[in-house]
Amino acid sequence: MKFEGRDIISIRDFTREEIDYILETARIMEPIARKGSDILKGKILATLFFEPSTRTRLSFETAMIKLGGSTIGFAEAEIASVRKGENLVDTIRTVEKYADVIALRHPLEGAARLAAEVAEVPIINGGSGAEEHPTQAMLDLYTIQKEKGCIDGLKIALLGDLRYGRTVHSLAYALSNYDVELYLVSPDALRMRREVLEEIRGRIPVKETSNINDVINDVDVLYVTRIQKERFPDVAEYMKVKGSYRVGLETLEKVKNGLIILHPLPRTDEIAPEVDATPYAKYFQQVWNGIVTRMALLALILGAVN
Amino acid sequence: MKFEGRDIISIRDFTREEIDYILETARIMEPIARKGSDILKGKILATLFFEPSTRTRLSFETAMIKLGGSTIGFAEAEIASVRKGENLVDTIRTVEKYADVIALRHPLEGAARLAAEVAEVPIINGGSGAEEHPTQAMLDLYTIQKEKGCIDGLKIALLGDLRYGRTVHSLAYALSNYDVELYLVSPDALRMRREVLEEIRGRIPVKETSNINDVINDVDVLYVTRIQKERFPDVAEYMKVKGSYRVGLETLEKVKNGLIILHPLPRTDEIAPEVDATPYAKYFQQVWNGIVTRMALLALILGAVN
Amino acid sequence: MKFEGRDIISIRDFTREEIDYILETARIMEPIARKGSDILKGKILATLFFEPSTRTRLSFETAMIKLGGSTIGFAEAEIASVRKGENLVDTIRTVEKYADVIALRHPLEGAARLAAEVAEVPIINGGSGAEEHPTQAMLDLYTIQKEKGCIDGLKIALLGDLRYGRTVHSLAYALSNYDVELYLVSPDALRMRREVLEEIRGRIPVKETSNINDVINDVDVLYVTRIQKERFPDVAEYMKVKGSYRVGLETLEKVKNGLIILHPLPRTDEIAPEVDATPYAKYFQQVWNGIVTRMALLALILGAVN
Repeated sequence: MKFEGRDIISIRDFTREEIDYILETARIMEPIARKGSDILKGKILATLFFEPSTRTRLSFETAMIKLGGSTIGFAEAEIASVRKGENLVDTIRTVEKYADVIALRHPLEGAARLAAEVAEVPIINGGSGAEEHPTQAMLDLYTIQKEKGCIDGLKIALLGDLRYGRTVHSLAYALSNYDVELYLVSPDALRMRREVLEEIRGRIPVKETSNINDVINDVDVLYVTRIQKERFPDVAEYMKVKGSYRVGLETLEKVKNGLIILHPLPRTDEIAPEVDATPYAKYFQQVWNGIVTRMALLALILGAVN
Repeated sequence: MKFEGRDIISIRDFTREEIDYILETARIMEPIARKGSDILKGKILATLFFEPSTRTRLSFETAMIKLGGSTIGFAEAEIASVRKGENLVDTIRTVEKYADVIALRHPLEGAARLAAEVAEVPIINGGSGAEEHPTQAMLDLYTIQKEKGCIDGLKIALLGDLRYGRTVHSLAYALSNYDVELYLVSPDALRMRREVLEEIRGRIPVKETSNINDVINDVDVLYVTRIQKERFPDVAEYMKVKGSYRVGLETLEKVKNGLIILHPLPRTDEIAPEVDATPYAKYFQQVWNGIVTRMALLALILGAVN
Repeated sequence: MKFEGRDIISIRDFTREEIDYILETARIMEPIARKGSDILKGKILATLFFEPSTRTRLSFETAMIKLGGSTIGFAEAEIASVRKGENLVDTIRTVEKYADVIALRHPLEGAARLAAEVAEVPIINGGSGAEEHPTQAMLDLYTIQKEKGCIDGLKIALLGDLRYGRTVHSLAYALSNYDVELYLVSPDALRMRREVLEEIRGRIPVKETSNINDVINDVDVLYVTRIQKERFPDVAEYMKVKGSYRVGLETLEKVKNGLIILHPLPRTDEIAPEVDATPYAKYFQQVWNGIVTRMALLALILGAVN
């Protein structure tokens, strides 16, 4: 398998074997993340975030620092060149002179792919439009494997806004590589995008429902995402369904023993704070897992491990 | 004395012995600050500034870099998760996965304490509400000791906005550990907070006055803070008192020989620029002293020195 | 030649011998930029950008990191102290305690010079007002020398907004040290500033024209800059002249073989994207050359090379 120089644009660009190899490399990164290293000494990561995302940006920066590398970049508020009218292609052609690898977040779908086409250095998609967020999907898989031992054989529910939430699109594609059963739980207005559904339906069993209580006691993994009320045509509609997508202690009364609850974070109120103290809650562990997964990706595409 | 793993939330959490130990460690940091070191190589400081403070943020970052560590973080303008509605507790639980220590500035009183309660890594309060700014108080003490040889026996005036200025609250508490006489000089509307006054009055002699000229010729240390006109119910009131709280060359005609003038900076016009060239002015030395004091704190709470 | 401790404020502060020495040092930096180094380990660069400029800021940061040093700083959006009313002199007196060298961008002409007068550490002007941008001029010279072998003997056209564009002012001064012929191509309203013209006219032949087609087939170097329509009293005027200052494939039909086209970037539409693929286009190479030129300057003024 060859990773050196590769772009990380869509989870769909990776075979199951490649994903498994990345997860295995992430596992190797665990002790390195704890004590630091000089694996990427002298290398520079540029984080170009055209959209706010403190969490993802800090995760990439932490991963690079723990590998001994350095970071430069900008966050939304200070995009000087962009205000001066510069196009993305020119920005990429400039920043690739500064950096050995670029992590890009952009509000437009296709932006990361376009960047990868023009760049001579690897591009990592840190989220583009409502489309994809491949490194989030990889850390989600890593978390499931770490917590459950193995991904094959699991029943997994994705809950919340499955239409606009980019993490669930990438995760659904990723999971369709494995032998899992998928439950999609969302309000009607926020059902999983047609094109995603069609593709994964050919590969794994998928059931759609609009109430978490239909499936909660059957699943091994519950993946929760935010529902933004701005997505609803009218707020009354939102208020009506809201309760069906909130996970509280009462939701969890009869769940399987080894259930794990994941969330890409930040959350608003879709998981009650009381749930944090249960053994099911693994969403803050996901944050740590994001560091080691991104360390694995950076080390692989920069050719520092193979 | 044990510092490893401790939070730095309030100056009141520290005994005189502990403060003296920190000041002694800061003294040891002076040559290290000049030539750099690898004492904290592989460690990460996160600076989470929910309120603007270039100065304090850069001071923490400089301290960490001079110890060989790295920094990540955000400044007010780009707080993505916060805009998405995330609460402070979730932010802390996330960032503690990235960092070995967190420096936090927040507009709400109690924020740093709350963060310390949930975090597994040490929290340093970089200013919370109008309440406290403990690392500023420590660097102020360090400056007084360095310039005057010893804190005990000094007469010290605090001048300006003693009501809303968080640095003077922390400094007053800190000074009450020492054998000093304190003069509090402020307009009536901006007198020292009642609860601070009551606590320190039991420990050291305190006199309140509203005119700097009453005390300027008696004191060894003059600590000046900004008076923001927004604090006054009406501007006419502000214009009337303004002159009594401005330090110019004429204010200093008959002062003690070894007087030192301090200011937490930034200043507006409460110290005339002509004063900068006098031997009394030590406010820019405070900036350097802030670096070594914060180096001492970082090294102590991360267990790198003891 | 002594560079240690020097400020880089105006290209006019440097003799031809000094500029040549900087270019020679930049050449030596090329392999170091590719593999990294520890030449400035333990040193800190502060980037104080009071005006947006992602590109220049990232270039300075990259240069410092490739020399093994660290960076701190702020970008426009988060200038806390400034919002609190602090003046530039106090900011500089503070930041010089944190950093070994300061790169400053400021909207006001004279700001960098003022900073250099009060600072004890070297100041590098990263652009001040519409006046000067000396490090850009140095990287432009470096690019010309690298691409053409030698600067003497060349015919060079500066195209676009020669009145408000600070890069062309610095470049015109810089070129007047060499044996070149200069063509200034601009709309009447945006002709080269009188004071620049008078100074360089005494040293090299200069011709002004308002149409690129008059000179394009004669020149060895075409230096293009943005024309901002906001600079025109009325938009109709802008629309009328716009076409004369846009470089497309048709502009280049009969040019000299070894022509090189430069641009300080970012561009808007003054160079057609189709030109990027021609052998003339060297503007993205300029970005790389900016890194090695700034590495040379940082290493020289911090006394790490000589």
